[in-house]
Amino acid sequence: MRITALAGGVGGARFLRGLLHHLAGWPDGPHSLTVIGNTGDDITLFGLRVCPDLDTLLYTFGGGIHESQGWGRADETFAVQGELAAYGVGPQWFGLGDRDFGTHIARSQWLGQGMTLSEVTRRLAGRWGLPAGGVTLLPMTDTPVETHVVVDDGDGERAIHFQQWWVQHQAALPAKRFVVAGLNKAVAAPGVLDAIRTADLVVLPPSNPVVSIGIILSVPGVRDALRGTQAPVVGVSPLVGGAPVRGHADACLSAIGVPVTPDGVAGLYADFLDGWLVDKADEAAMAGAQIAVRAIPLLMTDVNAAAEMASEAIELGLSLRA
Amino acid sequence: MRITALAGGVGGARFLRGLLHHLAGWPDGPHSLTVIGNTGDDITLFGLRVCPDLDTLLYTFGGGIHESQGWGRADETFAVQGELAAYGVGPQWFGLGDRDFGTHIARSQWLGQGMTLSEVTRRLAGRWGLPAGGVTLLPMTDTPVETHVVVDDGDGERAIHFQQWWVQHQAALPAKRFVVAGLNKAVAAPGVLDAIRTADLVVLPPSNPVVSIGIILSVPGVRDALRGTQAPVVGVSPLVGGAPVRGHADACLSAIGVPVTPDGVAGLYADFLDGWLVDKADEAAMAGAQIAVRAIPLLMTDVNAAAEMASEAIELGLSLRA
Repeated sequence: MRITALAGGVGGARFLRGLLHHLAGWPDGPHSLTVIGNTGDDITLFGLRVCPDLDTLLYTFGGGIHESQGWGRADETFAVQGELAAYGVGPQWFGLGDRDFGTHIARSQWLGQGMTLSEVTRRLAGRWGLPAGGVTLLPMTDTPVETHVVVDDGDGERAIHFQQWWVQHQAALPAKRFVVAGLNKAVAAPGVLDAIRTADLVVLPPSNPVVSIGIILSVPGVRDALRGTQAPVVGVSPLVGGAPVRGHADACLSAIGVPVTPDGVAGLYADFLDGWLVDKADEAAMAGAQIAVRAIPLLMTDVNAAAEMASEAIELGLSLRA
Repeated sequence: MRITALAGGVGGARFLRGLLHHLAGWPDGPHSLTVIGNTGDDITLFGLRVCPDLDTLLYTFGGGIHESQGWGRADETFAVQGELAAYGVGPQWFGLGDRDFGTHIARSQWLGQGMTLSEVTRRLAGRWGLPAGGVTLLPMTDTPVETHVVVDDGDGERAIHFQQWWVQHQAALPAKRFVVAGLNKAVAAPGVLDAIRTADLVVLPPSNPVVSIGIILSVPGVRDALRGTQAPVVGVSPLVGGAPVRGHADACLSAIGVPVTPDGVAGLYADFLDGWLVDKADEAAMAGAQIAVRAIPLLMTDVNAAAEMASEAIELGLSLRA
């Protein structure tokens, strides 16, 4: 079975690690998973290119993630950032550990040598054991793009980098809309559209529907590929009881005028979504929906819980196959 | 008193720290010290610009140096380089610690923003307490230059980066000559020639006479400035008993056909040297020299020993003033 997933950072990584855990015991293998990662969160810090979502996916798949935090490296130290602070070099609000710096230095050097982000990501992935188990991580595009947030805190509108809004301001500055700088020149990275078109199943993990999956959907061709694929497209709601499990999906949805409900989120995918996995607490809110809905507990308390969710998503998808 | 010094890394830094220690107690202050640092050792590693001699000088003056090693930072960790190794990114023979990486990342970011190496060095120096005590560190040139070593290990001549010869091969590959790549486009950095011309005393610390001081002397205008300055020029021999105290000055001198003797080294400076400080063990070897020679113990066992050497160098210089 060839599964293709669109993913942001922490939520997507945890769900997909569970999916891989589940697939390992699934019959009729080998199976493959192609993950299309959001690169709108990417940012250049200290002259180095940082790709937070791609790194969270790699660290999580490869066993290097800081487990309780969900992002960054386990057993991390912060000597480099301490030195940068001593030299008066900012920003300091984006915490980069020493091990993490190693990734960004390697990536930046390779990009500087002319490699594409796809090539760089494949190289980085090798260290984390991919493509063992048939796992491939693709950036959504090789074109440098950056999600900017138009905010208005009383002095008129201004655009700030997504990470500044998300990390420095904890999504507390009133957002008016999201703009992806560079998107007008972006094309889907090699393999992205084919992975959607030729999949047996497409999965949308419980990633942020606006600033993670929504950004991937904005890459030219991605939405058309999802509409046109023969594969069932199954999504997992990022909400539990009408609120995000973690992150600031509520602020993001409100900013674009979408209700913070599983129905509201599903509406963002209405043109291609076939099945929708929601939390038991949100089952009633989906009554009367036009798509196949399954309600289960959606808390990824550990790998086994995530694997159970993934199992339900796969079963829902297979039940929808023509 | 305005003192100007030409310096490489470890030996120069230790001697000049002693000189500053001595100057602090010298009457009729304030005094000033301008250090012209060798940049021929500079190398781009992992896409980052590394200036080993400038950093050794800053770390030593600022109290951040790994004291017994002589270069690099105290209390250093190596997480970043460990990650780069895990990603298969080399070279691994040049040991860069995490704190040290902080310096190179800051420098590279500023250079990337269009600052000159002089401006970058001034910024880095601020963190290390300069210009307190009237200390200014100038790179010899803002033009990127790199000392290459032409070696011949049996398969014909080939040029390798100085650091590869010095660090990876421990100067054991037979060197034929030294070539400074980029020197044809290099001009002395702002302030360098004036610092030599307007000094009250010029000092050559016991740095490597070929690949440290020799490289600074090759920057257009530097040698002329030394010949023309009114200030006495006093040098400190890097040899004790006819052998280098540390480093590979013997291999460097042999490569260019100069005897490994205090007389041989002084000969490299013959057109501008006024006074020459040698070790007691080398006093006889300097008999009959045409310049003022003073013989004292030249081992920099600690800061006080280096201060004593500097004191002798200053006194020798002042005794030679017109």
